[in-house]
Amino acid sequence: MKEYQAEIIAVGTELLLGQIANTNAQWISKQLAANGINVHYHEVVGDNLKRVSSTFHLAKKRSDIIIVTGGLGPTDDDLTREAFQEVSDMELMEHEESMKKIEAYFKKHHTEMTDNNKKQARVFKGSTVIENKVGMAPGMIITHEGKVWIFLPGVPNEMKSMFTNEIIPYLYKITGQKQLIQSMVLRFIGIGEAKLEHELQDMIKEQSNPTIAPLAQSDGLIIRLTVKADSERQASHLLKECKNKILTRVGKFYVGTDYETIEKKALFMLNQRKLTIGTAESLTGGMFSQKLTSVSGSSGVFKGGIVCYDPQVKTDILGVSTELINTKGTVSYECASALAHNVCKLLKTNIGISFTGIAGPTNIEGKPVGTVFIGIANDKGEELVEKHMIFGDRESIRRKAVLKGYEILFKFLKSIN
Amino acid sequence: MKEYQAEIIAVGTELLLGQIANTNAQWISKQLAANGINVHYHEVVGDNLKRVSSTFHLAKKRSDIIIVTGGLGPTDDDLTREAFQEVSDMELMEHEESMKKIEAYFKKHHTEMTDNNKKQARVFKGSTVIENKVGMAPGMIITHEGKVWIFLPGVPNEMKSMFTNEIIPYLYKITGQKQLIQSMVLRFIGIGEAKLEHELQDMIKEQSNPTIAPLAQSDGLIIRLTVKADSERQASHLLKECKNKILTRVGKFYVGTDYETIEKKALFMLNQRKLTIGTAESLTGGMFSQKLTSVSGSSGVFKGGIVCYDPQVKTDILGVSTELINTKGTVSYECASALAHNVCKLLKTNIGISFTGIAGPTNIEGKPVGTVFIGIANDKGEELVEKHMIFGDRESIRRKAVLKGYEILFKFLKSIN
Repeated sequence: MKEYQAEIIAVGTELLLGQIANTNAQWISKQLAANGINVHYHEVVGDNLKRVSSTFHLAKKRSDIIIVTGGLGPTDDDLTREAFQEVSDMELMEHEESMKKIEAYFKKHHTEMTDNNKKQARVFKGSTVIENKVGMAPGMIITHEGKVWIFLPGVPNEMKSMFTNEIIPYLYKITGQKQLIQSMVLRFIGIGEAKLEHELQDMIKEQSNPTIAPLAQSDGLIIRLTVKADSERQASHLLKECKNKILTRVGKFYVGTDYETIEKKALFMLNQRKLTIGTAESLTGGMFSQKLTSVSGSSGVFKGGIVCYDPQVKTDILGVSTELINTKGTVSYECASALAHNVCKLLKTNIGISFTGIAGPTNIEGKPVGTVFIGIANDKGEELVEKHMIFGDRESIRRKAVLKGYEILFKFLKSIN
Repeated sequence: MKEYQAEIIAVGTELLLGQIANTNAQWISKQLAANGINVHYHEVVGDNLKRVSSTFHLAKKRSDIIIVTGGLGPTDDDLTREAFQEVSDMELMEHEESMKKIEAYFKKHHTEMTDNNKKQARVFKGSTVIENKVGMAPGMIITHEGKVWIFLPGVPNEMKSMFTNEIIPYLYKITGQKQLIQSMVLRFIGIGEAKLEHELQDMIKEQSNPTIAPLAQSDGLIIRLTVKADSERQASHLLKECKNKILTRVGKFYVGTDYETIEKKALFMLNQRKLTIGTAESLTGGMFSQKLTSVSGSSGVFKGGIVCYDPQVKTDILGVSTELINTKGTVSYECASALAHNVCKLLKTNIGISFTGIAGPTNIEGKPVGTVFIGIANDKGEELVEKHMIFGDRESIRRKAVLKGYEILFKFLKSIN
């Protein structure tokens, strides 16, 4: 089978000024990889006719499939068509359906259509026109001197919808791609990247199929497994095999695969045990409950929470004694424990979780920035309270505290049955 | 003054697989723009010796300053040095200080150092070695056949620290850059991107210096002004002039510049009026309070909040009558109003703000997904309650509701004095 080599070119000075990142190339690369097409180059070039066409000339020499995003819009510095004309000598014509669409748009928005906007309806003679269901400028597929050129708008959601609905099926057809690529994400919590890589060092070193790529993310650590196979069956077999081997080493930090995020896992474990939960958040200011409620269906498990930012809320609403606060302080083992037990009673939930600590910038109660107490209690009076020192700026201390909270919640739920 | 043309090359197959976006190129481009150096190309190439060196050959032909990130690490597919050797015939040698550092690292972490790791200490003879204060692999500046080559690690925080501390001063020196570039961000809320662009159409069209770039972000709409000038004084004058012109047209949607985020603006306005605030969040699940407490010093104004996800919490804790809920529903003008007034009393704050609505996926109380009621009340009994229909998925409905909440809060605070 012929190995197709693809190249992705983004046209737009805003990328070269660093105003946006080239996430289009990332997204398209993922799609191509999943379809077994190798990407050998990404290029970004500004809105400059000479440089865009020289980039096209180069791509024509070295790649079989050339995907171009951007430069199809109405303004004078949208030059993708002009540049390709220089490379191909192909003729441009007005595309009737697209033209109608653009006119309709301006009618609908009661704004007068400038001639510029007509530019967007121009397509190359003999090209396959890809309708833009989201925006105005249509896309094009062109076969020229044995190379496949795919032109798409730079606006991500326009590009994505066209790529998914039209381009992928087309590529499937021309490449006759049999070997498929599948990937799986394994999510971990409570283990650092260095430690994880150390545990899997040899596997990562000897990796070939599937490949093993650890990646630290703001919501924990993931490992991406990517496999090439001849069939769905073989692919999932290889992925499963590799996953199991990894879990025999670091299984105790494992959360789930792909879309099994920590908040979904938490809801699942609570559901499974028919337990409800309530929160008492001081330093995290609602971040834990906000994350939990980002999952649809959380209402079955999560009843509510108290954001007890001010000490007065801790005493008046959550019944923490003034004496406790005066003797131990709001950032203390005792306060975290009291908050967890009391929110549990107050909201009539089975589980209560509390966060109190110092996100900074200044120390409180003579305790250093990064001091965090997380408490969990249940309606049977059992509790688990932990102190952690978290490093980073204000936001990362809050974020890591929330992650730690989920980690401790998992530990607690496992311990009670 | 010579116009330097820069090119940024990222080496790494993970970029071509779409596992990560090339945010390094974006960040570096911003820095270069701010120093008046034009970037003409970004390129991404995989861990393949032939392709990396051909990319280097091309860069050598077309650019004056070539910045390469990645491929300096310990593994066999880190090939940046080898590729540049092919292009330059320069000799590699072991860099003593770097070597010592690497050995020290492994001693400290009690792990045995493989020979691979020594690779990282190799630098080109005659190059200026850039110490890596964050990680292990050092960077290099090389002048070769009149072109400046800058090699940096791909790990963002390693690259950034080296670039900021060593590369920028160096570039300043060689380019003798006098003209400086300054930019300013204007933040807006309550106006759509289309509407804003429409209002400023002519200005955006005729823009030259400063340039005007509107950009929709998850926390509202921004306009980035970028100006080239000979002096700080001239730069800030031109920016101020352009800003004022924009504000005469869309000033009523203006929040602030640069770091004046909506949450900071809210805290500022509350502080100014010596008002405290409390929250009652149902659909947003703590997102509003979480955002407010992300700002240090929020404790002076924000006392706390009730995440009243479950109807029972609305009645038991926030004293919304069961009758109101049975007759009007939890997603209603009346419920939002009651929540705002009652949280104000409960937490003894001057202002109370409430969020109730349907984030989906399913309709509730016969009301469609996207129905959102936001209520604001104060201790004088005044109130402002608004209903909004918000479109999008679960998360964007919640996010947009929070933004709308800030917008209404601004409106309310302006109305009461």
